[in-house]
Amino acid sequence: MSAELVTIPARGGKAAQAGAGQHIKVVNTHGTQVVDAWAFNARDLTEWMSMEASRASFMKLAAAVGDTFVTNQRKPILTLVEDTSRCAHDTLMAPCDRWRYGLLGVEGYHDNCRDNLHAGLGALGIAVPATPAPLNLFMNIPWTPEGALAWAEPASTPGSHVVLRAEMDLVIAFSACPQDILPINGRTGRTTEAHARID
Amino acid sequence: MSAELVTIPARGGKAAQAGAGQHIKVVNTHGTQVVDAWAFNARDLTEWMSMEASRASFMKLAAAVGDTFVTNQRKPILTLVEDTSRCAHDTLMAPCDRWRYGLLGVEGYHDNCRDNLHAGLGALGIAVPATPAPLNLFMNIPWTPEGALAWAEPASTPGSHVVLRAEMDLVIAFSACPQDILPINGRTGRTTEAHARID
Repeated sequence: MSAELVTIPARGGKAAQAGAGQHIKVVNTHGTQVVDAWAFNARDLTEWMSMEASRASFMKLAAAVGDTFVTNQRKPILTLVEDTSRCAHDTLMAPCDRWRYGLLGVEGYHDNCRDNLHAGLGALGIAVPATPAPLNLFMNIPWTPEGALAWAEPASTPGSHVVLRAEMDLVIAFSACPQDILPINGRTGRTTEAHARID
Repeated sequence: MSAELVTIPARGGKAAQAGAGQHIKVVNTHGTQVVDAWAFNARDLTEWMSMEASRASFMKLAAAVGDTFVTNQRKPILTLVEDTSRCAHDTLMAPCDRWRYGLLGVEGYHDNCRDNLHAGLGALGIAVPATPAPLNLFMNIPWTPEGALAWAEPASTPGSHVVLRAEMDLVIAFSACPQDILPINGRTGRTTEAHARID
């Protein structure tokens, strides 16, 4: 099977299929772009990658290389097999959404990861009944020993990448996070495209 | 309005209505019982208390007194106004489910919080399209500075309680967690009833 190259457009969403055993390389092309990621069982779209079940499986706040994310039915779905990003990939935070930007003072519509998820899936003719918590690739949310969280700048650099191995036939969805108010995509507020390669 | 007294049966689930401004006192009657809790907007059952949105709102791994949990539409739904339990209430872990017990070596059916949620709601004639991450009251999941998690024994004692204020008209659901393999309900594996009072 030839590789599929996926462009995740700046501030937009994109979904793709991957077969069990395929590798999904997600590249932070410009270095400071958070990419929210979701995965769904291709045969049952009500089964999805679950951050709360994954933490209960690998018993960490964030995955390390070798750790496997599991679904809301506790089945392996994606394994982190390579990571050059120098930061933990956040598992704690909800995807940004229209209400979030309203609370941040935005008037009118703002692109957001929640809508990007559903638009990306919609382009494949897929609808899902909820918005799962995402795996926030390259998103730097440090915690203190007391449990305080912060929105930090990215630690990744241009070309930083992760490789995820598909553990079942799945649909993967990405959003190039359009957050330009908090510093999670860098203090400049610049939001960029990112890329993925499935093979 | 007179108070409603709710018994959460051992290993079972129970749901109830609460109006905006009412207080929900959850009592750890026997001292070591984890109680998973969920809340739904009474007027739109697709809007529910979201652990991932709540962490992004109060910016902590676990709520302290005065912190407000928000929904998947970022609206205030429950505020923690009193807490005598001496432990952080876990926001990180999925509710136990049939697949989880399968992985723990259980053969055949085992009571579980996921089914208890849906049974408790079902007794009120309510169905929801997904299983949100719960607020795990009295559940003691410590984290290390490196982000390692553990299943710890309860820190609560008989009569420990929390009080949650309803910030909207809502349906609240509880499960007296039937986990008797991991030590989260104490090393004896004893699972007990708990109680709630809504007024």
